[in-house]
Amino acid sequence: MKAVQLSKYEQTPELTEVPDPRITGPLDVIVRIGGAGVCRTDLHIIEGQWAPKTGVNLPYTLGHENAGWVAEVGSAVTNVAVGDTVILHPLVTCGLCRACRDGDDVHCENSAFPGIDTDGGYAELLRTTARSVVRLDPSLRPADVAALADAGLTAYHAVAKAARRLRPGRRAVVIGAGGLGHIGIQVLKALTPAEIIVVDRSPDALKLAGELGADHTVVADGSQVEAVLDLTGGQGAEAVVDFVGEGGAIEDGVAMLRRAGDYYVIGYGGALNVPTIDIISTEINFIGNLVGSYNDLAELMVLAADGKVALHTETYPLDAFAQALADLDGGRVRGRAILIPPEA
Amino acid sequence: MKAVQLSKYEQTPELTEVPDPRITGPLDVIVRIGGAGVCRTDLHIIEGQWAPKTGVNLPYTLGHENAGWVAEVGSAVTNVAVGDTVILHPLVTCGLCRACRDGDDVHCENSAFPGIDTDGGYAELLRTTARSVVRLDPSLRPADVAALADAGLTAYHAVAKAARRLRPGRRAVVIGAGGLGHIGIQVLKALTPAEIIVVDRSPDALKLAGELGADHTVVADGSQVEAVLDLTGGQGAEAVVDFVGEGGAIEDGVAMLRRAGDYYVIGYGGALNVPTIDIISTEINFIGNLVGSYNDLAELMVLAADGKVALHTETYPLDAFAQALADLDGGRVRGRAILIPPEA
Amino acid sequence: MKAVQLSKYEQTPELTEVPDPRITGPLDVIVRIGGAGVCRTDLHIIEGQWAPKTGVNLPYTLGHENAGWVAEVGSAVTNVAVGDTVILHPLVTCGLCRACRDGDDVHCENSAFPGIDTDGGYAELLRTTARSVVRLDPSLRPADVAALADAGLTAYHAVAKAARRLRPGRRAVVIGAGGLGHIGIQVLKALTPAEIIVVDRSPDALKLAGELGADHTVVADGSQVEAVLDLTGGQGAEAVVDFVGEGGAIEDGVAMLRRAGDYYVIGYGGALNVPTIDIISTEINFIGNLVGSYNDLAELMVLAADGKVALHTETYPLDAFAQALADLDGGRVRGRAILIPPEA
Amino acid sequence: MKAVQLSKYEQTPELTEVPDPRITGPLDVIVRIGGAGVCRTDLHIIEGQWAPKTGVNLPYTLGHENAGWVAEVGSAVTNVAVGDTVILHPLVTCGLCRACRDGDDVHCENSAFPGIDTDGGYAELLRTTARSVVRLDPSLRPADVAALADAGLTAYHAVAKAARRLRPGRRAVVIGAGGLGHIGIQVLKALTPAEIIVVDRSPDALKLAGELGADHTVVADGSQVEAVLDLTGGQGAEAVVDFVGEGGAIEDGVAMLRRAGDYYVIGYGGALNVPTIDIISTEINFIGNLVGSYNDLAELMVLAADGKVALHTETYPLDAFAQALADLDGGRVRGRAILIPPEA
Repeated sequence: MKAVQLSKYEQTPELTEVPDPRITGPLDVIVRIGGAGVCRTDLHIIEGQWAPKTGVNLPYTLGHENAGWVAEVGSAVTNVAVGDTVILHPLVTCGLCRACRDGDDVHCENSAFPGIDTDGGYAELLRTTARSVVRLDPSLRPADVAALADAGLTAYHAVAKAARRLRPGRRAVVIGAGGLGHIGIQVLKALTPAEIIVVDRSPDALKLAGELGADHTVVADGSQVEAVLDLTGGQGAEAVVDFVGEGGAIEDGVAMLRRAGDYYVIGYGGALNVPTIDIISTEINFIGNLVGSYNDLAELMVLAADGKVALHTETYPLDAFAQALADLDGGRVRGRAILIPPEA
Repeated sequence: MKAVQLSKYEQTPELTEVPDPRITGPLDVIVRIGGAGVCRTDLHIIEGQWAPKTGVNLPYTLGHENAGWVAEVGSAVTNVAVGDTVILHPLVTCGLCRACRDGDDVHCENSAFPGIDTDGGYAELLRTTARSVVRLDPSLRPADVAALADAGLTAYHAVAKAARRLRPGRRAVVIGAGGLGHIGIQVLKALTPAEIIVVDRSPDALKLAGELGADHTVVADGSQVEAVLDLTGGQGAEAVVDFVGEGGAIEDGVAMLRRAGDYYVIGYGGALNVPTIDIISTEINFIGNLVGSYNDLAELMVLAADGKVALHTETYPLDAFAQALADLDGGRVRGRAILIPPEA
Repeated sequence: MKAVQLSKYEQTPELTEVPDPRITGPLDVIVRIGGAGVCRTDLHIIEGQWAPKTGVNLPYTLGHENAGWVAEVGSAVTNVAVGDTVILHPLVTCGLCRACRDGDDVHCENSAFPGIDTDGGYAELLRTTARSVVRLDPSLRPADVAALADAGLTAYHAVAKAARRLRPGRRAVVIGAGGLGHIGIQVLKALTPAEIIVVDRSPDALKLAGELGADHTVVADGSQVEAVLDLTGGQGAEAVVDFVGEGGAIEDGVAMLRRAGDYYVIGYGGALNVPTIDIISTEINFIGNLVGSYNDLAELMVLAADGKVALHTETYPLDAFAQALADLDGGRVRGRAILIPPEA
Repeated sequence: MKAVQLSKYEQTPELTEVPDPRITGPLDVIVRIGGAGVCRTDLHIIEGQWAPKTGVNLPYTLGHENAGWVAEVGSAVTNVAVGDTVILHPLVTCGLCRACRDGDDVHCENSAFPGIDTDGGYAELLRTTARSVVRLDPSLRPADVAALADAGLTAYHAVAKAARRLRPGRRAVVIGAGGLGHIGIQVLKALTPAEIIVVDRSPDALKLAGELGADHTVVADGSQVEAVLDLTGGQGAEAVVDFVGEGGAIEDGVAMLRRAGDYYVIGYGGALNVPTIDIISTEINFIGNLVGSYNDLAELMVLAADGKVALHTETYPLDAFAQALADLDGGRVRGRAILIPPEA
């Protein structure tokens, strides 16, 4: 089959011919890819930023946001059948460790992460397992939801944590209204009655944010901290949900936080650098966020089916992957770029 | 009355004669001080580290860990009577704002903090209100429990948060077995079934930690991260409770943390400096901790009365305050220093 | 002033002239009533159902759902001023007991309940305290929100508890779309993404339920259990919110509950009668609900101000109280009846 | 192999020869039984009380509290090996449904319950799956821990829920200090700082309760409600943990409950019958409890290994099962009866 593989860090990946994946275990599932999301993490992987964490052997196939149709199943698979439309939880998990059994499968002690540390979905076929496939209504097109598998799931996971404390009258600041951020805004709207303030450099992104439910939008032009404090009676917001995580976003975000507030770290690239006296004197928290659990993904698919979360996508044929990566890097993708294999 | 006042930053406070505090509001309570704890924060105040946060006018009376006997009450006070033995919650709170009504009185929007931003308990008398006095069994001596009012309460508050996730088989690392740390260890033992690992530079402090219930003690001699990883099957601990918060403690503590673990920031002085990729890829949290609520203090007093939390103290007459501060700064206080006014 | 007082159980109350309430404590607040809700509990009080629980001395003034304007304040009141528009939390609480300090002021150990165990708001003036007044935007009319003070607050409180577990894809069954129920539906819609199924005998009430956001409505004509099971894939709902609590509602509600589901008891009059084997084999919970806390009321006022909770009311002059009670008893009130004093 | 099978309700089971269980799925595990607990539920099964709920076909093998050694494993089993000492979670769960993925495997939508609805452990061998085996330290003897698999796990599960609210100064009443109750007391002691009050008819059971950590014991001689109210300042306990669930235990237990308290239903046989006005006016909750999750069992094994939970057992050879059942029914078993197969 055709697959886009990374052969060397800091070099553009290549479209090559590789062997089809095969069923090797009783719970294996082979999925024919219908859409694979192109994510900022792919750029970071190509730059080598993830290499020390994953130790993946090159070459391997990129692509960690995948949806498609079941092509083949192992002998013990009972929850899906050949032909089912599915979205893939990004991790392949064991189901036996303490974390999996606690509903915290993201921290599975024996997981694989297709597209990150094993072959992913920039390809015609991908191997996962019965534990990672969420069955979709056949009316849904994989290309329309693929990017919810990781970007959307991460946004959902962080916002669902924040939602627990966002009762009426509380405020949530969303920093960054791009790929993840615009999903985060919709999830905030669906899960909480909080007042939503969105901060971004781009007036276009803020316009979209307003259409998606932001109560206030703030241009990040240097006056954004002051603007958020004005909007919150000088006290700051109970939650800051940071989809940027680099540049001055973090310092700004901390300054926008109310006493006893929660700072959700989602975007990455920079560093959190805060004097401990500032953390203890206001008693603020920093909450890390990786991707969500399988059940989080199933819940997000409910919101998608209800029309409460809609993804803005731009599609590219699989062999235009380099253009998609370049457009993302150049800030030219509105919403999310999706690769479509030839016969999907 | 006699009081120890700070007249100028970076200068030793002075014992002077000041007017007695007077009842001015219907809920006011005047307490005759029986013991006032000497805290590292007092050293930081004298150094001027808190000045920009509190904006207190000098001179004022230090002392934010106080216990004693009720000397006079305002017209609307119903919960204590003259002569009652009491420990003082460190804050004077309004009881009317959202935070007070949520049981989160530490974040009262109209609070005063005797000893920090108004006159404290290095004195014969102190004014507080009905909302801040916890009545004690008359058999308890104020000098024995005073330091639980802030140091103990801070340790209790942080550990009570950590306890929610510390089920059997989970591990908690305590960094620092000094004044707060040795209380924290006892509270961990009282509230959780977790395995307790204590890290400190001082073999003496670790000896005490072992007597108080630590399951393992680790000398911070450079090999402490490796030692903790060895004790946790290479995975790290679910909770790190950091009573130091400066020097290399934070970097070490983060390295001792398990995936999805919680880092409790209590000690301060240094800075938290962590790449955001490390926060999101392991999904760890940093939890700020200020002092606990009034109910936290009441609960801590239950543990004290049950003999589950015992405080190691060294007493000094009020006029030996300078010696007490010097001993604390020089690391010569085992447990907690307590000032005793002349006629207490 | 004029007040509607109950002189004898099982007898219609009477409009009489009574002395004006006076400030007696520093935190007292006298409110000029702008609207007082007429509640089914008033009927139960007149019937004597509450007598053994409250031990109130007759005669006394009914009315526990009150809003109006501040007329006079005690010497220590800082949070409201004469002329402010306010809604009254139904309880007068002490602010000093463990429950008050935990944000659970409904279980205050020293509370009074105007209209239930002391003089209420079927009158021109009512005495409460600074702890019970929620300041409103002056544009809001007391008569429009008064019934949210107790009926609405009870519905909000129960639904806010339920909301913690109602993630996307979960179902909530609301039994009873009358006075409380129609508020409960709006609160469910505002706080949760759950699918809402409303059960009532009255097609009119169900029509209103549909307009307020119910996803499905079910006529309680004998087939309601089957209908709910059909709507929930045969599994039942994760939450049943029962605003009726008598007749066959409870048996039906339990049969509509999914394994590990939560049954919220709000309506009362009947009895819960369930074999323990049915409780343990499906591991279901029964959650009692009284009125909400002060902060719950403040949050509900945010929803009201945002237009997310609108109350259907029918107003009566204060001296038409007997008609209002009779209309309520006869099922002729759509939404909530409100008494308006002469000069409000 | 030999197995004790139930052939007809209301008739004593029989020891018969049946075929050995065989591996049929890749995750199957065959366990050689080392000990099987005899539980009051077995008596209820024989009486036919569970028949309408399980629909099991007779004859089948009883025994739902099992421990032993792994005898054979399916092709995909990675977490245990032949020869490992294991305790069995009572349910065989799918690992794929929403409940399993939420860590709530007890409510698995595709579960089997050996000994309840399929062949259990009153036998030499039992078939379960990789998802249900908790590996034990080889020093532990299966017969010593077997009864923790269900009785202990149920007690642990209920108490772990209660523990979330049992902070210092709170009280827990344990009703019934028999097989489950005496484990519950130990778990309360291990997980909470609460004051423990134990109520039982038997002075012997109360003596054991005192040795295991009860702070107060109360003989159920008719004055038990008054005695508990006396011990709780007239207010009642924050939690009642009812291991009896029949006779007058429930009425008594409700009367022992504090406002806003939680009643944990574990024992069964009788009915919960409470007027709804009593539920709402005090805002109490009734919490159903089935057996705990796999992770609960792993946690309980940590407590057992730490010596914090010790089970009192009396062993019988497998072929003396009838005597064991009769002794249990006659109240002659102290702690828990355990059947031991011939060659274990």
